[in-house]
Order: sequence, then C-alpha cells, then structure tokens
Amino acid sequence: MRHLIDPLDFTVEELDRLLRLGEDIRREPGAYSESCKGKKLATLFYEPSTRTRLSFEAAMLNLGGSVLGFPSANVSSVSKGESVADTIRIVSCYADIAAMRHPLEGAPMRAARFSRIPVINAGDGGHQHPTQTLTDLLTILTRRGRLSHLKIGFCGDLKYGRTVHSLVNALARYEGNEFVFISPEELRVPGHLIENVVKPAHIPYAEVTGLEEAMADLDILYMTRIQKERFTDAGEYERLKGSYVLDMPKMVLGKADMAVLHPLPRVNEIALAVDDDPRAAYFEQAQNGVYVRMALILTLLGLAPSGPLAEQALSAQRAAEATGAPCRNPRCITVAEEELVPLYVPDAHGVPRCVYCEHKMP
Amino acid sequence: MRHLIDPLDFTVEELDRLLRLGEDIRREPGAYSESCKGKKLATLFYEPSTRTRLSFEAAMLNLGGSVLGFPSANVSSVSKGESVADTIRIVSCYADIAAMRHPLEGAPMRAARFSRIPVINAGDGGHQHPTQTLTDLLTILTRRGRLSHLKIGFCGDLKYGRTVHSLVNALARYEGNEFVFISPEELRVPGHLIENVVKPAHIPYAEVTGLEEAMADLDILYMTRIQKERFTDAGEYERLKGSYVLDMPKMVLGKADMAVLHPLPRVNEIALAVDDDPRAAYFEQAQNGVYVRMALILTLLGLAPSGPLAEQALSAQRAAEATGAPCRNPRCITVAEEELVPLYVPDAHGVPRCVYCEHKMP
Amino acid sequence: MRHLIDPLDFTVEELDRLLRLGEDIRREPGAYSESCKGKKLATLFYEPSTRTRLSFEAAMLNLGGSVLGFPSANVSSVSKGESVADTIRIVSCYADIAAMRHPLEGAPMRAARFSRIPVINAGDGGHQHPTQTLTDLLTILTRRGRLSHLKIGFCGDLKYGRTVHSLVNALARYEGNEFVFISPEELRVPGHLIENVVKPAHIPYAEVTGLEEAMADLDILYMTRIQKERFTDAGEYERLKGSYVLDMPKMVLGKADMAVLHPLPRVNEIALAVDDDPRAAYFEQAQNGVYVRMALILTLLGLAPSGPLAEQALSAQRAAEATGAPCRNPRCITVAEEELVPLYVPDAHGVPRCVYCEHKMP
Repeated sequence: MRHLIDPLDFTVEELDRLLRLGEDIRREPGAYSESCKGKKLATLFYEPSTRTRLSFEAAMLNLGGSVLGFPSANVSSVSKGESVADTIRIVSCYADIAAMRHPLEGAPMRAARFSRIPVINAGDGGHQHPTQTLTDLLTILTRRGRLSHLKIGFCGDLKYGRTVHSLVNALARYEGNEFVFISPEELRVPGHLIENVVKPAHIPYAEVTGLEEAMADLDILYMTRIQKERFTDAGEYERLKGSYVLDMPKMVLGKADMAVLHPLPRVNEIALAVDDDPRAAYFEQAQNGVYVRMALILTLLGLAPSGPLAEQALSAQRAAEATGAPCRNPRCITVAEEELVPLYVPDAHGVPRCVYCEHKMP
Repeated sequence: MRHLIDPLDFTVEELDRLLRLGEDIRREPGAYSESCKGKKLATLFYEPSTRTRLSFEAAMLNLGGSVLGFPSANVSSVSKGESVADTIRIVSCYADIAAMRHPLEGAPMRAARFSRIPVINAGDGGHQHPTQTLTDLLTILTRRGRLSHLKIGFCGDLKYGRTVHSLVNALARYEGNEFVFISPEELRVPGHLIENVVKPAHIPYAEVTGLEEAMADLDILYMTRIQKERFTDAGEYERLKGSYVLDMPKMVLGKADMAVLHPLPRVNEIALAVDDDPRAAYFEQAQNGVYVRMALILTLLGLAPSGPLAEQALSAQRAAEATGAPCRNPRCITVAEEELVPLYVPDAHGVPRCVYCEHKMP
Repeated sequence: MRHLIDPLDFTVEELDRLLRLGEDIRREPGAYSESCKGKKLATLFYEPSTRTRLSFEAAMLNLGGSVLGFPSANVSSVSKGESVADTIRIVSCYADIAAMRHPLEGAPMRAARFSRIPVINAGDGGHQHPTQTLTDLLTILTRRGRLSHLKIGFCGDLKYGRTVHSLVNALARYEGNEFVFISPEELRVPGHLIENVVKPAHIPYAEVTGLEEAMADLDILYMTRIQKERFTDAGEYERLKGSYVLDMPKMVLGKADMAVLHPLPRVNEIALAVDDDPRAAYFEQAQNGVYVRMALILTLLGLAPSGPLAEQALSAQRAAEATGAPCRNPRCITVAEEELVPLYVPDAHGVPRCVYCEHKMP
C-alpha cells in the first residue's frame, strides 16, 4: 500500500503516469464519474484549510465516491487524548482512503505507518504539502506541454514559502530547467536549497530583487505572498511590498505565452486587473487541483488504468532505515506522541534527519 | 446564467413556473431522485444557520446530487484574507451551484458577479433571505390554492422582520390581496414599505395593535417573534409580549381554513397546544422549504422541465446600470472588499441605492 | 415506528436478530451497498463525538444512503432558543432517520416523542450510549460465538463508566455468565447495579482490586480508562494507575482465546505492545461498530430482511405509563425545555424514575 507524504514520494516515472492521468481526467472528467463508487474518503483536518479540503471532497465526489470527516479540531473530539496512530486505525474502519491536515510536522507520516488505508498528507505544519506541488506541476504541464526546458521565476517569500521549496525540488528532477529567484534580501531562497538541490542538478539560476527586471523571458512566473510578519523592520516591508505586486504594467514586460501561477489565497500581491489576462493561470490551477487529486485517489486506491506503483514510497524506504534517539523539534508529532521505533535517517547529503519532520539530529 | 439574490429576482411568470414545479415535486418527490446525479452543491455558510443549510443539503440529496462546503466561518479558513470574489471563483471549480450565507449585506451578489456557477443568497446579514420567501409562497399556495385574493395578517416584529418585508413585496405582485399589520407601536411596519409597496399596488391594509381583534377573517396568519432586545423599555416588552402569543383561545377566533405560518425557530410566540391544530402550517412549511429549494436548484441549473429563464435577474439588470461612489454602510460587503465598478442605481422611486446592500446613497 | 434510546430497548429476541444481521453484514458488506439508496441520515451532534459520528456516517454511506447534519453545537444555530422537540420536527422534513448526541440527559428520548422519523441515541450526557453496547455485544459474539456462558472481567472505572453499566445490564439477560469487577476501592461498581441487576439474575460475581489476579480464566476482558479527576486523592491515583494498565506481562496470564475490548479512545491504560497480540479486539470493535450501526439503521427503517419489531420499545412502553411532577435533575432535558406530560414511572424495583433521565423522584 502506498501513501503520499512527501512531494518526492513518487518517482519521476510514477509522477509522469499520475500527471498523464490528470490530463486525461481534465479532458474528459465525465469518464471517471463512477470510478470510486462505494469508496469513502475521510478528510481529517486537525486545522481548517477550506480550499484544500473542498478540493479533495470535490475530487472524491467527481469520482462517484463519498466523503466523511471533520473540518477542524474544534468541532472534533479526536484531539482529546487520542494519538494520531490510534485515530487512523479507527478511521481505517470507516473509510477507504484518508487526507490528513495537521498542525504538527510528520503527523501524516505517523498516521501512514499505522494505517490500513492510503494516507495523503494535506499539509503538516510548515513542513510539506505535496498535493499543492502536484497541482502546480499539472498546471505547468497543461499550459506549456512539458515540465522540462522551462525558465521559471519564483517571486515573493522564498525563504519560508514551502510551496516554492517543494516545486524547486520537483522541477529539479527534469532536464534543462532554469530558475530565477525574485525576492527581497530578507526573504531569499535558503542556501541549503541552492547547495543541496539546485547546484547538484546543474540548474542555471539567478537571484534578483526586482520583479520587473526578471519578467522578460520567463515561461512560468510563480507568485507567492509576502507576509508583513516575516519582516523584522516594518518600514522595510512598506518600502518593498509594491515591488512584488504583479500588475498590468509588469505583465506587459512578460512573454505572450508565459503562465502566472499562485498557490492562493492571494491578498493583494496580484492586482485584480491581471485576472482577465489570458496568462493568469491561478484560477485554472484550482481546477487542476481537483483533477490531480482525482488522479491521486485513483492511483493510491489501485484504480488507475496504468500499471502498479512501487511497493513503498521513497520517503517510506528511507524511514525504514532510521535509527537513533527521539526528535527535539517541538513542532514534531513525535514530541506529542510516544514513538517506539528509531527516528533518524541520513538524507542525500549524509545529514541525519528525523523521519517525520526532517529536522537535523541535534 | 441566473442567480437568486433578491426575493424579487424572478418575474411573476418565472416564479409561477418555479412554484408549480415545487408543487409537482411535493406531490411526487421520488420522480426527481436522479435529476441532479453527478451535480454538486456548495454550502458556503460564513455564519451558522443550520435549518437553512440542512434544507439546502436535503434538497440536493433528494435530487441525487451531492454536497460539500462549510457550516461556519470558525471551521473555515476562507475568511482569512481571501475576498468573496476570489472564493467563489475557486468554488466554481469545485461545485455546480452554491448557496451562500454571509454576515455582510450584498456578499452573495458580489459572489454572483464573479461566479461561473449559479449563486443562491441563503441570507446576507439583515438584508435578504429569498428562499424563505419562496418557502412562504409555496406554503400559502398549497394551503389556499392561490397567491391572490387573500387576506393576510402579519403579526409580531414588523419593523425589523425581513421575512415579513420580503413577503409583503412578493404578495403585492398578486391581485386582490389585503394586508393586516399586527404589532406593538414600537415595531410597526416601516413607512417606506407602506408608501413604496403597499399603496402603489392599491392594496387595502390596516394597522392594528391586537392579535385578537384581527383574527376573525384572516386567510393567512404570518407569525414572527418579538425580541426583547428590540424594546427600549423592558417594562413595555413585559406588558406586551402576551398579546402577541398565539394560543388556542385566539385560534378559536380564526376561520376554519386559515393557515398559520412562521419562519421558525419559534420560541414561545406560538403555544405548544397550537401545534396539533390542523391550521398550524409551520412544520409543513419546513417541508415545503425543501421542495421549493429542489425546484430552485433544478431551475438555476437549467434542468427544470419548463422553459428557460430570462438571461438576467431583475436585480442584475438593475445593477448593470449602476454609477457612482463607494457605499458607506459599514455592514456592506463593498466596505470589506475593494470594488472596481460603480455602485449606485436608482430604485423604483428614483432613490439611488447601493447595488449590493440597497442602502441609500449618503 | 421504533427508536433506540436505551440499551435495553430491544427484547433479547429482537437483539438476536439485529446482531445476526450485523454478523451477516460483517461477512458480506457489499451485499448491502444499495440497501438505503435515496435515504438520508441526520447526525445531530450537539457536542462533538467524532468517532461515534463517523461510525454512523460510514454505516449510512456503506448502505448507499447519504448524510447531513452538524458535528458540534458551536457550528450550529440549533441551540439558539429552539427546543429539541421543534428541531426534530424540522429534521423529520429533511431526513429519514436521525442520530442524536446531546449533553443533556433524556434529550434523544424527548426528540423521539416528537419525531416523525426513527431517532437513535448517540449518547446523552452521562446517561446512555446504546450503540456502544451493541458494538460491544457484536464483538463478543464474533470473537466467542455466543453471549452466554462467558466469564467477563470489567476493569477500570466501574463507578462512573456508563459503557460498563450498560454492558452489565445487557449481558445479565443471557444465561450462565459470570462477572469479575476489577477496580480500585474508590471506583467500585455501584451497589445498585449489583442489587438490582446482577443478583436478581443469579449471576456469580467477584469484586477484586488487582487485574493480575483476575486474568487467569477470563473469556472477555473489558478495559476502561481511569480518569485522574475521579480521585479525591491525587497520590492515590498515582499509586494505583499502574495496576490497571494492561501490558504484555499481564497478557501472558490470560487465556489464549480471551478477547480484550475497550470502548476507545484509550490513553495509556493499554500498552502499545498489546496492540499486536491477536487477543486485542479493540480496533476490530471499531469496525464492528460500523456493521452493527448498519444493521440498526436497516432495522429501524424497516428494511431488515427478518421480521418486524414490536410496535414500541421497552422504554417507550414504560414512558407511556408515567405520572407526576417535573424532574429536578439539573442535567435533564426537561429542565431546559417545558414538558407538558407526566414524567415519573416506577422501575423494575418500584422506584419512581424520570422517564427521560432515570433519576429518582426526589
């Protein structure tokens, strides 16, 4: 049985099949309207995330299945003393597949290890949100016909934005891509991402502070929000924020076949006037989020038309080799719940990291 | 594409067709059990209204469709910074039709302007609640066989009760009706409703302070609750409240074929003993609420057996001619969300009113 | 029309049929996947109980039906002034069957008296939780092949644990059973349960304070949690808690065909290592909870293959003979809602008890 916990859980080959299925669903959604008849999706949202939850629910309903679950821990009694490990074993009696959102890092992975049904990580704290990455990839693919040989600009908060980090990781697996990182100095893309992902993949990249100067030859512009709270100096925030607002004067500088993506919600980092530009792909992205989740559910339930998946996800293979002491990250699920098995495993660079939250061993 | 935002959005002819469909569904609900197979209703309830929400959900399930959404903003993340305009564009990717309840006036109309799917106003602040009016009309029709040539008594809080105002507006479009307004002095029906609606339609009317004296020849008695908070003088409230409680001694004064309606919930303004009187129609009204919402969903999705609707609702036609400055009503959606287009349009009496909340131009 | 309000509402013969249906569903769940097509379950949860709610929802979805309702009063407006009596009359317009969880004792019974659809008590305050008892019985039956001639150990908080009290009542109706009550002195099984239930049924029983000494010849071990708050002396709690934790050293003392049950959630009263022991039946119990609720829904909707039920439940027959004054229990539904009919009825021992909450007449 396979789960989706980490955006890199699928091999490139598995991912290609999943995205092709997503494209097929997009072309002819009606052909799948009975594919999950009699199947149930549990949406276990320990914190609210309405867009993500509704996208999963729409996906399952489109497949002819049904949905149960909870939208928020404050309308649920699950948080009262029961471990995620026990909860998922109970939910395995109620549903055929589960999507879990949890404020603690690693909670969906922990659930996966005790589950009798496939578990999908629908966001674990600030850690991972793999179905957003799948959505982004399907949108790039449908707009540009490929995931390789593209020049992609990432704009906004590149330091904390997990969707950016995941997408960088995902696109680094394809040939011939080029990255432009557009952010204020305070919110630059983390050095470890450059050192461990971008450079080893031999991806040409640039770091710039102005959106205007970067627009000219982008194939994809991936916008994110800059949150005031990220700045130590409020004046600096006020001085900078306008530079990272995408408006029509900046759009004029872009190519005719560029596509603008945004994980949404946007606040004001994209002017309303841009919405009517055919290059705006962010609402279409929400639609793709439903299609790719349909493809994901079919794939994890073993109902996808193409061949089977490998027995274990890459992250699960890695986890199987863990050793060592308990994690010290206060936002890690293992701090909240007793863990009986070893925790640390070396990453691609030999750094021992917690299986659940990926923090370095202290 | 048509929405339902204002109780007067349907022409009388369109409304007649919708109510006839409601009556047909009432006679034979099973005949419609597959009519919305594969369709999804989104219930977007920014504030809780359980009866209204469940009535919509029951309606969609009865039609063989399915439901997703949120029951309250406190279990949703939609309120965090995302505009109603963006939310409905996302929800348009998830569902085929939406019912929206929102604390701000005009929010469903704003959603309708950005939506790719039909939007139903399920209550916007103290402004409008059109499906309640449809429910009231279907109940009157099934009880009395017509919407014209009736003597209707409205009892209770006629000053603030929006269900009363909407029903007065709706019944003023039919011939030969007569109104009796029964309320304490402090809660009299607003003068503008008399001047702008009742008098222009040449409807005979009376204003009285006692329920007993009005009972004798009513065809319909529409009860509403009197809330203590509406009174500036608590003693006045205590002195009056009994006069507006419908009990069996008062029921004895009414005609044998009278029907008692109430939008529910009732608190104590109708004695429990009245529930068993065959003239009590208020629980039947709840059932009609499901049938009329089934008819509404079918109509807005273009699945109703009878002919098509006009291209635009009356309120949308009016809105298209708006001009002017931003609204100043603090409870109007446009105060919370930036509006790019003009706002004011003259009403039937030449008074410029906000397209969204209908407040007068300041 | 029948409801399920009290764990003893079904006669032994009716219960046998229901449990046999549960076993049949367990063997072949797919055979029932269309049995409730077009039927709707309302889950009316005035307080959250996620496991119970999801179990009901999974049951209805497995039967091909659909679900509406609310997961918590804080996302609902039903609690605002509307009585349970009025709410259930409205919900009768929306659904075909209802499961109600309520913090006040007797609320589901009150709903049942005004309902046009079958009402299932999904827990009313600390009073009754009959579907938990059904779940326990089905699990014992499937593990041991019978409900009679068994030696059952009840361990933990036997004073306040309502699941224990209900199960004692239920198993006392079968021949040849034997009970062992295992608890600290402060949390002993109530004297009235021994006097009124165990002794009249001529059931051999023992009361012991140690789990180890009782393990040897149990057929069933029913574990419950000991809550710190139950102890007047915190030191006493600390001293005792370990004795009532089921771990592998204690499991070694048990028979090979013993079954361990627990109503869940467990906190730490069963060690994680026990989960892998084949005698651990508590997760299987959660699965049986779905099957037995499927059987219950079919039975109450009159869709069960076997014969019909008696016209009234035992508790409803008893209630029909009530007389007397209003209840004084502050946690009784009748204190919150006006009651027009008599309240007290003698129990099997001639003690007059409130029809709703079963408190003694003061």
